[in-house]
Amino acid sequence: MKAHILTIGDELLIGQVLNTNVAYIGEKLTRLQIKVNSTSAIPDDEESILREFKRTLASNDLVLVTGGLGPTHDDITRKCIVEYFETELVEDPEILSDVNAFFEARGRTLTLTNRLQALVPRIATPIRNLKGTAPGLWIEKGKKQIICLPGVPFEMKYMMDNFILPKLEEKLEHKTFMAIRYLLTTGIAESTLFDQLGNIEELLNGAKLAFLPSPYGVRLRLTVEGTSEKIVHEKIDELEQKIRVHAGRYIFGTEDDTLEGVIAKLLIERGLKVAVAESCTGGLINHRLTNISGSSHFLDIGIVAYSDNIKIKMLNVKKEVIRKYGSVSLEVARQMSDGIRIISGANIGISVTGIMGPTGATPTKPLGLVYISVCDEWVCRAKVFRFGDDRLLNKERTSQAALEMLRRHLLGIYDDD
Amino acid sequence: MKAHILTIGDELLIGQVLNTNVAYIGEKLTRLQIKVNSTSAIPDDEESILREFKRTLASNDLVLVTGGLGPTHDDITRKCIVEYFETELVEDPEILSDVNAFFEARGRTLTLTNRLQALVPRIATPIRNLKGTAPGLWIEKGKKQIICLPGVPFEMKYMMDNFILPKLEEKLEHKTFMAIRYLLTTGIAESTLFDQLGNIEELLNGAKLAFLPSPYGVRLRLTVEGTSEKIVHEKIDELEQKIRVHAGRYIFGTEDDTLEGVIAKLLIERGLKVAVAESCTGGLINHRLTNISGSSHFLDIGIVAYSDNIKIKMLNVKKEVIRKYGSVSLEVARQMSDGIRIISGANIGISVTGIMGPTGATPTKPLGLVYISVCDEWVCRAKVFRFGDDRLLNKERTSQAALEMLRRHLLGIYDDD
Repeated sequence: MKAHILTIGDELLIGQVLNTNVAYIGEKLTRLQIKVNSTSAIPDDEESILREFKRTLASNDLVLVTGGLGPTHDDITRKCIVEYFETELVEDPEILSDVNAFFEARGRTLTLTNRLQALVPRIATPIRNLKGTAPGLWIEKGKKQIICLPGVPFEMKYMMDNFILPKLEEKLEHKTFMAIRYLLTTGIAESTLFDQLGNIEELLNGAKLAFLPSPYGVRLRLTVEGTSEKIVHEKIDELEQKIRVHAGRYIFGTEDDTLEGVIAKLLIERGLKVAVAESCTGGLINHRLTNISGSSHFLDIGIVAYSDNIKIKMLNVKKEVIRKYGSVSLEVARQMSDGIRIISGANIGISVTGIMGPTGATPTKPLGLVYISVCDEWVCRAKVFRFGDDRLLNKERTSQAALEMLRRHLLGIYDDD
Repeated sequence: MKAHILTIGDELLIGQVLNTNVAYIGEKLTRLQIKVNSTSAIPDDEESILREFKRTLASNDLVLVTGGLGPTHDDITRKCIVEYFETELVEDPEILSDVNAFFEARGRTLTLTNRLQALVPRIATPIRNLKGTAPGLWIEKGKKQIICLPGVPFEMKYMMDNFILPKLEEKLEHKTFMAIRYLLTTGIAESTLFDQLGNIEELLNGAKLAFLPSPYGVRLRLTVEGTSEKIVHEKIDELEQKIRVHAGRYIFGTEDDTLEGVIAKLLIERGLKVAVAESCTGGLINHRLTNISGSSHFLDIGIVAYSDNIKIKMLNVKKEVIRKYGSVSLEVARQMSDGIRIISGANIGISVTGIMGPTGATPTKPLGLVYISVCDEWVCRAKVFRFGDDRLLNKERTSQAALEMLRRHLLGIYDDD
């Protein structure tokens, strides 16, 4: 099955919003082995929409449309469907009752404009929208499918996940089956990771492996095809295990995991508490840890110790140590992590100190120089890192490196170096 | 001038990356009064590329292409240009010297593959790429322009801003001129802002005004057209002033300003220091303030006080007050802001305490309930807010509300309520 994703809306053309719908739908269709041939964005304009329906339906089995289904005068996708398929609008009782319920739940009365939302082209099967008021439309014409969804991302996603993807999966006649899995690594460069995997052809044995680098780490996408669902799942499990043998220590999670989520789970399971003293990251590490629901189980306090004075006063860093080594040093990082651990009563103390830029570099302390320390009652591990010259990116990368040091500390993964 | 933005790359179709290039280019062309008719994304595939060149050049004056200019085998945009325009590749000495310099600066030697980057289709004017190795291509054929740029966003942006946009502006024969300005508001709902502006037709007097809401505030886009550059600039200044009369207190900045950047400037100008005690935002407010270069001038310390115990121990919140009102209360917020101000020695203390969700709500303290307090030596202003049920969004909105209270405190803007 070949597909085109058609997004409708003036705001997509003038750079007012990022088109996130295309990436979301592209990923979901690819997972179903539907090949996304192309995507396009066009204005809320009748002539453009009709022309694009014709063009994209001619060379695709499926056209997935988002946008232009709302209640206002510039939403004309439904009108164009009526015209293109030479059909008419009829009121759908189930959709009307959904729209009614939506307004009732919010204590608002239904206006005529809202009631019009329940009008559906006769040729289309309406798709219920339980997150908003505009229903989706599914039209089957010969062997071609055209599916229209609202452009509001969370409405579109809800309808994709709950209605569209399961129904599309039923329609697919799989000759081959496919499984996709993501393994998430951090703290290792793409080329090093590649080398670590050894003979890649032998490892893959017909499967596919993509390296997807970002400032936070490298995601690995494994793709396996085969003649049954059972076979592809067995094959992908086997491939994952083989990769873990070579590079398991760098893999912190799979699929949509986050590093902070993985750490939160470990801390809660073991009943441990952590406290972070941040200099250069200025609060970002604490922010990431508290993004996880339930973070009050493992975090009581965090300190942003930006000035030398605060490092001394609040974290018991020795004045002489700052004088001797400078506040961006391994020694100060060690004392900061020990200091926050002791004053907080947490099991683990973490600290970061570094030069984020664009100013603050010296001949011996370049931009991007960072020291991170993780300690508990028994041991203190401190490391030096060298990042780049972009302040925000440096903060992100420092937070990622610190959290990864914490993960490895919790799992007893120690550096070879 | 009508334009199409054509983005090339498999990664755009399978949802691997967000297509940010389209939004960037769309915004820049719109500012030049070039109308973006449509955009599309297609795979790195010769047949698709040639078909799309033909289709988009037929109905546009300008086709702006990104992607597929790199040195590897799957980058075939240049090859397609050669084929489409029936031309040939010739080595460009200036580009070769750029590529050479790029490798020299990084201490790497030029490989044959890299040298091939200096081959340019004879019909094209090469566009220098000082951020990478793949040059851009500008082809003028009759009255049509086709411009190819690398897909790497920061290379593309650099070339757009420094070479493409100035040259495009020269080519435009303006009959009318246009000015666009963004005014950034926060802390006011879209509909309230609309009402605040009074008689909108009278206010605009032919100009255009778009309301662009987000969880952080409403951006206003002002568009003015006229017969000379001078006239449109005078008109847009005048319109801005009129809007400021009605809603100036909510406008924290213009264009690409950030709320934290505006605050940093005010603090540095006045030599003031701020200290933030965060409960529910867990570090986000300190993170945002330290995103600004030079933040060490106005920030020495921040405290994430997540547990009651830490609020008592570190911020001198009274135990009885927590017992009587609960830790999510106006009284605790006040004491926290006073506490952090006193222990830090800063001029201004800020605190936030609230229920971010998804758990933690009680019958009297619903999800999204937040108290924020800002105090200095003389006065303490605390306010209650009610946000939603999404944890991450609640953290973002709380941080925005707290920073806006700080901005208004600094400017002496007081609430009517």
